[in-house]
Amino acid sequence: MTSTNPLVSDADVAFLLRDVHDVARLCTFPAFAEHNLESFELFIGAARRLAREVLFPAYRAMDQEPPRFSPPHVALHPAMAGLFEHLVAHGAIVASRPVAVGGLSVPLVVTALSNLYLMAANASAYAFAGLTTGAAHLLEAFGEPALQKAFMEPMYAGRWTGTMALTEPHAGSSLSDVTTRAVPQADGTYRMRGAKVFISGGEQDLTENIVHLTLARIEGAPPGIKGVSLFAIPKRRESADGLVDNDVRCTGVFHKMGWKGIPSVALDFGERDDCHGWLVGEAHKGISYMFQMMNEARIMVGMNGVATASVAYHESLEYARTRPQGRSFTARDPRSPQVPIVEHPDVRRMLLRQKAIVEGAMSLVVATAYYADLAEHGPDEGERQKAALLLDLLTPVAKSFPAERGFESNALAVQIHGGYGYTSEYLPEAWLRDQKLNSIHEGTTGIQSLDLLGRKVVAGQGAALRALGEALAAARARALAAGVEGPTVDALGAAFTQVEEVSLHLAGLGLSGDVDGMLAHSADYLDAMGVLLIGWQWLLQVAALAETHRDDAFARGKRQAAAYWFATELPRIGHLTTLCRSVESSYLRVRPEEL
Amino acid sequence: MTSTNPLVSDADVAFLLRDVHDVARLCTFPAFAEHNLESFELFIGAARRLAREVLFPAYRAMDQEPPRFSPPHVALHPAMAGLFEHLVAHGAIVASRPVAVGGLSVPLVVTALSNLYLMAANASAYAFAGLTTGAAHLLEAFGEPALQKAFMEPMYAGRWTGTMALTEPHAGSSLSDVTTRAVPQADGTYRMRGAKVFISGGEQDLTENIVHLTLARIEGAPPGIKGVSLFAIPKRRESADGLVDNDVRCTGVFHKMGWKGIPSVALDFGERDDCHGWLVGEAHKGISYMFQMMNEARIMVGMNGVATASVAYHESLEYARTRPQGRSFTARDPRSPQVPIVEHPDVRRMLLRQKAIVEGAMSLVVATAYYADLAEHGPDEGERQKAALLLDLLTPVAKSFPAERGFESNALAVQIHGGYGYTSEYLPEAWLRDQKLNSIHEGTTGIQSLDLLGRKVVAGQGAALRALGEALAAARARALAAGVEGPTVDALGAAFTQVEEVSLHLAGLGLSGDVDGMLAHSADYLDAMGVLLIGWQWLLQVAALAETHRDDAFARGKRQAAAYWFATELPRIGHLTTLCRSVESSYLRVRPEEL
Repeated sequence: MTSTNPLVSDADVAFLLRDVHDVARLCTFPAFAEHNLESFELFIGAARRLAREVLFPAYRAMDQEPPRFSPPHVALHPAMAGLFEHLVAHGAIVASRPVAVGGLSVPLVVTALSNLYLMAANASAYAFAGLTTGAAHLLEAFGEPALQKAFMEPMYAGRWTGTMALTEPHAGSSLSDVTTRAVPQADGTYRMRGAKVFISGGEQDLTENIVHLTLARIEGAPPGIKGVSLFAIPKRRESADGLVDNDVRCTGVFHKMGWKGIPSVALDFGERDDCHGWLVGEAHKGISYMFQMMNEARIMVGMNGVATASVAYHESLEYARTRPQGRSFTARDPRSPQVPIVEHPDVRRMLLRQKAIVEGAMSLVVATAYYADLAEHGPDEGERQKAALLLDLLTPVAKSFPAERGFESNALAVQIHGGYGYTSEYLPEAWLRDQKLNSIHEGTTGIQSLDLLGRKVVAGQGAALRALGEALAAARARALAAGVEGPTVDALGAAFTQVEEVSLHLAGLGLSGDVDGMLAHSADYLDAMGVLLIGWQWLLQVAALAETHRDDAFARGKRQAAAYWFATELPRIGHLTTLCRSVESSYLRVRPEEL
Repeated sequence: MTSTNPLVSDADVAFLLRDVHDVARLCTFPAFAEHNLESFELFIGAARRLAREVLFPAYRAMDQEPPRFSPPHVALHPAMAGLFEHLVAHGAIVASRPVAVGGLSVPLVVTALSNLYLMAANASAYAFAGLTTGAAHLLEAFGEPALQKAFMEPMYAGRWTGTMALTEPHAGSSLSDVTTRAVPQADGTYRMRGAKVFISGGEQDLTENIVHLTLARIEGAPPGIKGVSLFAIPKRRESADGLVDNDVRCTGVFHKMGWKGIPSVALDFGERDDCHGWLVGEAHKGISYMFQMMNEARIMVGMNGVATASVAYHESLEYARTRPQGRSFTARDPRSPQVPIVEHPDVRRMLLRQKAIVEGAMSLVVATAYYADLAEHGPDEGERQKAALLLDLLTPVAKSFPAERGFESNALAVQIHGGYGYTSEYLPEAWLRDQKLNSIHEGTTGIQSLDLLGRKVVAGQGAALRALGEALAAARARALAAGVEGPTVDALGAAFTQVEEVSLHLAGLGLSGDVDGMLAHSADYLDAMGVLLIGWQWLLQVAALAETHRDDAFARGKRQAAAYWFATELPRIGHLTTLCRSVESSYLRVRPEEL
């Protein structure tokens, strides 16, 4: 029953790539000069086939038979080795990197779209590749050539995998409290000692080696964030005898509620005082290095949120079209055949809500990846700077909106399946479990809200917010020129004005020293910004349809989803921004002992 | 770490029982004459101890080791036999029933509160008792004396268990499509033939027999709901040789995402054409009998939603008070100790939101149970009728609000636990999985919304809505008299007016024949009604605190939770009622092929 699930709408992918976002323009930049839209679509098409034919068929078994831990070894599901070979062959690890390091120079916006299929098919399987890209990219950006040769090359080649080893038992969201220690040695390496937790893919039987990109503190480093450095710590290190054990031990496996195909483990470094680490870049700059990779990682989480919601949306849509149950309110003859549940208005409400979330968020994540490409490869400094501002501003929303609303959307997919949806005989419950992680890893939703309001919105005296205002104004102009009706266009303008005004008000609070007051309603602010940005993306989509005078079923469905968002969600911004103005301070006032 | 979880706040239970709802008054009715508040609290106290000392310690193991199916037998977790004995001894099955049938004549409002502890501790374990109560109560209400003696008595005594066998593979929400057949026999019994699915507790190794209260169609019965009858079908039937097999076979076990302690099974009746069934009450009245029990079953689901959210709220509160992570915005010295995460405003927001949902919904479910007691045992016909109207109106909200908002609340409990919350090393993820069922069983949330708007609100020319208006007016008068500030009181009045006006508008649509238009936004209507009713319960609680001039930590926390609800949720009613007025018709218009 799941074999017909498209995972992601092909028509929507083509629409985003060709009509909504000007991806063709990227091919005019030197970095992407050897590409064109057709080569992008070929690349995406390959991912689509890999996703549907190879990754998705293995998903259920990997969800139901998680990796087994025989200390200190972890045995993955037997299917994983084959999937990883396919992923490597597809270029899932290195496609977005330059040709010089073995990549294909595919823009992020294109790898994002192709990864969407891979993630929707089997998030855990793709994660081995995605984490390896992230770890190798850190070395590409900040490592010395010898380090790149030793660690980056085998990772990009798919011979080894990589991880990000940040979290410690007492330091999750608070990275300044990392205590893993590094003692400098005469040979330029470091002896590492510490414990990390929640390391995804931190142990496996897939490749001969794993490289852990690890945050640690060099002996004598200053306290806090300014004393944290970045190290490459391989599971096995090169020696005259080939690869030898590097005193990295897997001490436990967490039993996660989802993402069951990839183990999340606890690691001990240096139990025998023989764990060698290699400093990446300069000492004490680990956090800043990590943060320069953070946008990409967070967009990936957003993409995963979209993917997990997308596959469940398509599953529930198919179920609703084919499951007969009940009759319309007005045709109550019990001998008449039951109708497919998609005919019931409340079921269509749940489906359209999923569609509005999934396709709105997909467009937002694509836009964010597009700004990442512009920020790195744009033709002039001014455009690159503006794109970087927008990238920074959009990222916390592109990360958290798909996670939070995607979870809601995944719950609706379960609900549409009724009692069956509550069982593992059907897949929606697995996707619901998977989705929950996205609001937690790579910075919780709360952290994203503080990042958005406390850092991004006020950066450069509000330059990012102004850039967003310009982008929204351009979208409105585009929509008007294409013939989209005025009230819809004006609604987005009014919504932006509400968000802009409350932003200035809150920034003013911060400048006057009332940081608590400024940030108290960061959750409501993030919610409002998410509703606004998704509205923006729906306006762009409606504009693109109008430009091509499209009125097929695809276009009509899009227009209804946009109408749903504008009528149902956009009006909430007024309420949310009112809350941000601190008319409500209950949870600031309540004391822990009063809860 | 979980052993200190109180499951439910004892102080809150005492507050609801003594100060908010006038439970003492029930003891003036003949049915409850032998009771007083102290005996009620003794009964609740016994449940509390059983829950904390016996049921909760077994919860994790039962979640992790679900029943095993060796066709046709199901082996429960070995702990379950002991738990069931304790539940029977406590009176969990029969306490609410009259002394004449072995009960204790405890009002529903009191069994609801005591069951809250049992459910919060171990929902699956309690479910064996709760389902047995429901099945036996059907026989008590509608069965002939011989049937009561044969089936009701052993169930009330806890020697056998009972189930509700309604759902068939093609007939879940649509009970009129039931096809299980009953062929009358000369001896007055029926030969049963059919298949049922999702029968909770439908097979077990706990008791020597199980009685399935089953919807089926007598041969030649009219189509639809008017041809459905109710039967008692035992797993084993009495014979000269004692209990013999009654041709009821368990053909499969569903793999549920939660409620893992109780199996949900598929049953086949009459494979060998030797399945004897006994008609309960009159032929063709099965649905109406079932619906007369439905309020009680739905309040139980609501109670379970509250219980599952409550235990998770207390778990995350304790975690937030003790887990150090990060520092305040203004004290950024990295050498200063980390603070407990409850000090972070956004964590307190999540906790206060949980509290507002859990304690608001708990008060609503208690109120609903109270009206059920009044409707059955009230001193005069007028009061009984009015209580019955309110009971009918409140039930769909008391069922669905705790399920939907409880799920959100349970997700917040996971979120507060961060990465740990995503693992089964901690319990919140299990409660999140458990909670999802409550929006599905005993009528999905969509069904509840249609029941509320299409049936309850318009019943008796709006008599129930008028009764609600009176109840809210009484609450406002009580609050004003106690000294609650005017704007809070007025806000509830204004919110009711919004709901009342849109109700009349929608009822008008229905009367004019536009049933689709009336019911299109039933989900938004249910949402608005839920926000209003929880606001009502918070006003009652604030009033009760003011009456006793209470200003301890308990009272201050309650006031902040009420303030949170009034500021954050009540204003949403305007938006929701606007949507109900059909300004938005996207999902009525969208066609299945456009999604």
